[in-house]
Amino acid sequence: MFASIAAAGFHVSPGIASFFEPLPSGALGSDTLYLWIAIGTGVLALLAALLFARSVLAADQGTADMQEIASAIREGAEAFMARQYKTIAIMAVVLAAVLYGGYLAYPLTAPLAMKVVFSFLVGAACSGLSGYTGMFVSIRANLRTAAAARNSMTAALKLALRGGAVTGLIVVGLSLLGIGLLFVLFGGIANPEAVPYQLVGFGFGASLVALFAQLGGGIYTKAADVGADLVGKVEAGIPEDDPRNPAVIADLVGDNVGDCAGRGADLFESSAAESVGAMILGAALFPVFGIKGILFPLIVHAINIGASIIGVSSVRGKETDDPMHTLNRGFYITSFLALLGFAAAVHFLLQDRWWLLAAGVVGIATSFAFVSITEYYTETRYKPVQSIAAACNTGAATNIITGLAVGMQTPALPAVVISGALLLSYYFGVRGLENLPDGVMIADYYKGIYGTAIATLGMLSSAAYILAMDTFGPITDNAGGIIEMSNQPHEVRDRTDRLDAAGNTTKALTKGYAIGSAALAAFLLFSAYLETIHNIVKHKVEAAGFTLPVDWTFSNINLASIPVFVGALLGAMLTYLFSSMAISAVGRAAEKVIEDVRAQFKENPGIMKGTSKPDYARCVSIVTGAALKEMVLPGALAVLMPVTIGVLFSHLSTRFHLKSSTDLPEGFSHLVNLTGAESVAAFLMVGTISGILLAMLMNNGGGAWDNAKKLIETGLYGGKGSDAHKAAVVGDTVGDPFKDTAGPSLHVLIKLLATVTLVLAPLFV
Amino acid sequence: MFASIAAAGFHVSPGIASFFEPLPSGALGSDTLYLWIAIGTGVLALLAALLFARSVLAADQGTADMQEIASAIREGAEAFMARQYKTIAIMAVVLAAVLYGGYLAYPLTAPLAMKVVFSFLVGAACSGLSGYTGMFVSIRANLRTAAAARNSMTAALKLALRGGAVTGLIVVGLSLLGIGLLFVLFGGIANPEAVPYQLVGFGFGASLVALFAQLGGGIYTKAADVGADLVGKVEAGIPEDDPRNPAVIADLVGDNVGDCAGRGADLFESSAAESVGAMILGAALFPVFGIKGILFPLIVHAINIGASIIGVSSVRGKETDDPMHTLNRGFYITSFLALLGFAAAVHFLLQDRWWLLAAGVVGIATSFAFVSITEYYTETRYKPVQSIAAACNTGAATNIITGLAVGMQTPALPAVVISGALLLSYYFGVRGLENLPDGVMIADYYKGIYGTAIATLGMLSSAAYILAMDTFGPITDNAGGIIEMSNQPHEVRDRTDRLDAAGNTTKALTKGYAIGSAALAAFLLFSAYLETIHNIVKHKVEAAGFTLPVDWTFSNINLASIPVFVGALLGAMLTYLFSSMAISAVGRAAEKVIEDVRAQFKENPGIMKGTSKPDYARCVSIVTGAALKEMVLPGALAVLMPVTIGVLFSHLSTRFHLKSSTDLPEGFSHLVNLTGAESVAAFLMVGTISGILLAMLMNNGGGAWDNAKKLIETGLYGGKGSDAHKAAVVGDTVGDPFKDTAGPSLHVLIKLLATVTLVLAPLFV
Repeated sequence: MFASIAAAGFHVSPGIASFFEPLPSGALGSDTLYLWIAIGTGVLALLAALLFARSVLAADQGTADMQEIASAIREGAEAFMARQYKTIAIMAVVLAAVLYGGYLAYPLTAPLAMKVVFSFLVGAACSGLSGYTGMFVSIRANLRTAAAARNSMTAALKLALRGGAVTGLIVVGLSLLGIGLLFVLFGGIANPEAVPYQLVGFGFGASLVALFAQLGGGIYTKAADVGADLVGKVEAGIPEDDPRNPAVIADLVGDNVGDCAGRGADLFESSAAESVGAMILGAALFPVFGIKGILFPLIVHAINIGASIIGVSSVRGKETDDPMHTLNRGFYITSFLALLGFAAAVHFLLQDRWWLLAAGVVGIATSFAFVSITEYYTETRYKPVQSIAAACNTGAATNIITGLAVGMQTPALPAVVISGALLLSYYFGVRGLENLPDGVMIADYYKGIYGTAIATLGMLSSAAYILAMDTFGPITDNAGGIIEMSNQPHEVRDRTDRLDAAGNTTKALTKGYAIGSAALAAFLLFSAYLETIHNIVKHKVEAAGFTLPVDWTFSNINLASIPVFVGALLGAMLTYLFSSMAISAVGRAAEKVIEDVRAQFKENPGIMKGTSKPDYARCVSIVTGAALKEMVLPGALAVLMPVTIGVLFSHLSTRFHLKSSTDLPEGFSHLVNLTGAESVAAFLMVGTISGILLAMLMNNGGGAWDNAKKLIETGLYGGKGSDAHKAAVVGDTVGDPFKDTAGPSLHVLIKLLATVTLVLAPLFV
Repeated sequence: MFASIAAAGFHVSPGIASFFEPLPSGALGSDTLYLWIAIGTGVLALLAALLFARSVLAADQGTADMQEIASAIREGAEAFMARQYKTIAIMAVVLAAVLYGGYLAYPLTAPLAMKVVFSFLVGAACSGLSGYTGMFVSIRANLRTAAAARNSMTAALKLALRGGAVTGLIVVGLSLLGIGLLFVLFGGIANPEAVPYQLVGFGFGASLVALFAQLGGGIYTKAADVGADLVGKVEAGIPEDDPRNPAVIADLVGDNVGDCAGRGADLFESSAAESVGAMILGAALFPVFGIKGILFPLIVHAINIGASIIGVSSVRGKETDDPMHTLNRGFYITSFLALLGFAAAVHFLLQDRWWLLAAGVVGIATSFAFVSITEYYTETRYKPVQSIAAACNTGAATNIITGLAVGMQTPALPAVVISGALLLSYYFGVRGLENLPDGVMIADYYKGIYGTAIATLGMLSSAAYILAMDTFGPITDNAGGIIEMSNQPHEVRDRTDRLDAAGNTTKALTKGYAIGSAALAAFLLFSAYLETIHNIVKHKVEAAGFTLPVDWTFSNINLASIPVFVGALLGAMLTYLFSSMAISAVGRAAEKVIEDVRAQFKENPGIMKGTSKPDYARCVSIVTGAALKEMVLPGALAVLMPVTIGVLFSHLSTRFHLKSSTDLPEGFSHLVNLTGAESVAAFLMVGTISGILLAMLMNNGGGAWDNAKKLIETGLYGGKGSDAHKAAVVGDTVGDPFKDTAGPSLHVLIKLLATVTLVLAPLFV
């Protein structure tokens, strides 16, 4: 932002760097090696993805029956993606124009307009590209996985995981390449302190696309699922996945566009936004680490890629092994390698400050804790799911009540874990930055915040593998559907069922991981926002011919001030309203599916007789249109609400005696009004807290209902068809839009709020 | 607290009063008249309650059949209340001992120990007494209302409202008397500035009892309801309210102990805690208004009592009128009179500062807005309930999904209203305190906060009438049950059904009102906490022989500091965990009911044949025991969690470099560590935000499900017995623990958090 103009144009060093003595500029030269390592690893990731993709595509494609079903899924998914990206592209271009105009309107931001808009568009494009190519492979891997499952479960598992790894590697690789190349392009080698601030557009572009991808995909997948079930099972009385149901292909398409493309975009923006945020904090520590501190986040992602490639390649198991066990072994290997890499990075880049490695370990441990807690609440072998299944004996109402009670309980442990992780990594950060070079002084606060950033990077250091495990879910789910619809023998179905069960678990775990990283990263992104505001203020004051005291910082979000409290209240409110909108959107879009299926049955009586085929594509097209229409309003709300609050409060607060109590140094309050910036900060933070808790309720509650149904289907309490099972189906259906639409969309919302406030920060001061 | 010791013993003026020049002490004398007016009105309220009670008790008691049922309900309710109060009394005494010991342990707090513990016990006793006497009348008014309904609906309506008015008047009257007399007793006439701080124990006592009363009553009522339904309707196949069901009396008892005693305790603590909070802020404005500013909150409650007596007495309607219409007319009359009284109070006590009247009007308008919004979301004539009813056509799952989507939407408008009310009343406060006497200087911030306090008082200025309307609910509900069980003619049932429907609406509206006042009061109570901490710091610094700068204030809760953020996160988490516990408690207690009913059917086969009567009392006793056991853990959590956080952070933060960034003046940080106090403040504020939103979701979602079922029972979508109705029953059952256990308990939790932090503030510094 402003700071970067300042630093780039007028040679004013940004942010807290003003505490420090500048380093001799010659110290930079050799360190840029790490930049090229990072960019090189990004290229390597794409090459590895290509190799994995080739090995998947080369595999056997099964029978003609199977291929026909798979190609219907593929066509539907591609049609949805094409239309969805068109809609998103239009919105992105409009927003880019608004952004450009907004930046151009103020003399201070004008020089940055091009860079911000360019990085925004690159971020959006990379996010779209990683979602698209990931799905490109997934919708082909499903068929190969199904074909392999006819002979061997291990072979099928490997294929599905490799298909998933393509998504994981492309996501992390593109994020690394995008940020690395923009850094070079914007002159980061000459101006390493300033350029990270110019990359915020990249994060915003990524999260904007992610929000719409997750929302649109999430609405699509559950509208198709609920609609197909209601009209097929309830009205027409035909079983699930019956080829006579015109919505059945739409349902299978949904798994890909919701889980696969949606989560890919989610984790793309995590890795993008959190890398940029950590680079901004690294820029603030420039006097300590030089450019190495700024490049550290990129090197961590390079490690992530290397460790994940080895982890995925090492996965092998016996036919009789529990697939989840096999997948977890790969995860442990990846995590261990990431830890080693992290230690090496601390050695080479962070001056052997081993307390910072400890902060990274806190992040890795947090990811393990989140995964375990999610397992506890959503797996059938633990008490929560068992209690929900037992409640099904007394009907749907007690099932729902128990599930909601479990869901509301789920945020407790994660909140304690996050609190512990924040406190510990803060402490390690402070310890890690003791004994600074002579003349360099950093407040404990900034040291601690840097510790939390390192912990976040630690948590993300196995993201590519996690993402591979996640995409494994829709691939095996689809493979199961293909096997089911093409009437394969019983033992083949057994294999795909086992793989599908593991896929359900990995999907749940990834959601736990994604929300954990969102929670831990909240502070990092938040600090980046504070830094950005600080720089804008500094520049405004300097432009007016004054100088801010060097020790003034913008790190005071006073909740006891009314506008700040109002910002906090509205931030928390947004998470409820957004969830409500997402859930009702599913209902409305499902309604459209039902109408079309009814119409098809009426227009063409041959469908039910099995003499003619339903028009799958028409149904796919209708639910596509409905989902895309429904995603616009909640998405727009998420962008507009923080902007409105920030602009309103920054302009009206003085007139209405509502200035917050932030202590600008005396004599500057006529130059700068921080009320808007402060209330937006509270909006962001409390919105994040509320969003995290609500998302955990919905993800874990939904997952627990799903598995309680599966538990009963194993034969408990009368098994399939019993009253308990009917009650369990109600819970499962309620949980669907929770865990696959609203919950995951909330993850993305939280990060979008962080990036939109970063990019639009100049408007709030 | 400390301040009061200081002020009482060492003549140091408290809080922001230190900004001001002291007034000549002679100015106090005549103004104490207002104190006696307030106390006198408190006595008047109790007398009026006595008169209303006598007129209710003198009414016709109907047939022997009806009396038998009513006396079973009465005995059950009294047995529950007796055991509940015994449990609460034990906990209160233990806590009083801990409080006494805690205060005694520090030399600075020791002189206050007696006063705090005494006011705590008085507050607890008054709260218990108001709950008990209110219920004493209600469980007798139900029979008289039923008897009157045999001839006239208007007569029945009047009786029920008068029965409710007894609760309303006793609650507000006892609160006024308790605070007024303690003020006199603690030497408030001589030391008006110091004594308000010594009254915090009263608020804490009131909210502690309220929490357990609401939790225990809420668990009881829904456990009995759900248990009776599941075992009666589902297992035994007998209709609702069938006398053969051993749990039927427990169900009717529940309406009284949950809705009636619970909400009475809730609003008792509102009026107590918010009065004390407003008096603390009034003390801070002592140089402007003298003792009048401190007595203003009491005078507002005196107005409340007068206006409500007239409002209740004025209620009359024709037989054909909609009962809700008749009740609302009384509410409008009360509100109008309260407004007039408020204006008079501003004239006599607040120096004709009419902007402050405007702040009061904001409060009154807020109460109207909350009532309207609640009506919109929970009444059958509006779209939300209709959409839920329509969703029942596609089954229980879509009903639940739609209901949850509506519930999640409900916080949006209220959050905007609260934001507007806070901003406006802040602005009016600033304007109202312009043109201060020479030499008096007050920061805009304090003026604005006082404005929000005035708005809260405005909102509470019709509390007694609102409470009468609320208690109207369980009285008419019980009257309906008595009519049903004693086989009265059809037209009598019609009358009680209409009254019951109105009662359901008033119960929903009161919940909206209660949550609105909790939201608006959050700032008031929060400011009182900040003031208290400020005084403690001041005294600690002075005890060490230093002097704080006069312009230093503790009004900075920096959300960007890690311990503060952690406090905020855990505060929000508590609201989820607490709700989860409350909801699962209902399930477990209902389980006990089911077991007992099954056992009774087995032990005594004559019950089902109708040849012998079930043992109602045994079932009442079992659910009583279960509910009381279940209320202890969530209650304890609510008290212990903020204390643990405050104490931990204040003791560990320095050692772990976790000190918050609050700017104590230089040179004092070795004397005082504010990290604990700050993180508790964030815990309180963000817990309040999260609690308000969650409570609205649950109250309104539950109310909407209930009325969607009622809408279908009018004949829509096939009416009673249809598939849509079955789906609607599931929603209604899910909504029960939402709207009658967890939601209302959250109101009380929010206020308990505020009072527990006020009382234990000395531990956090």
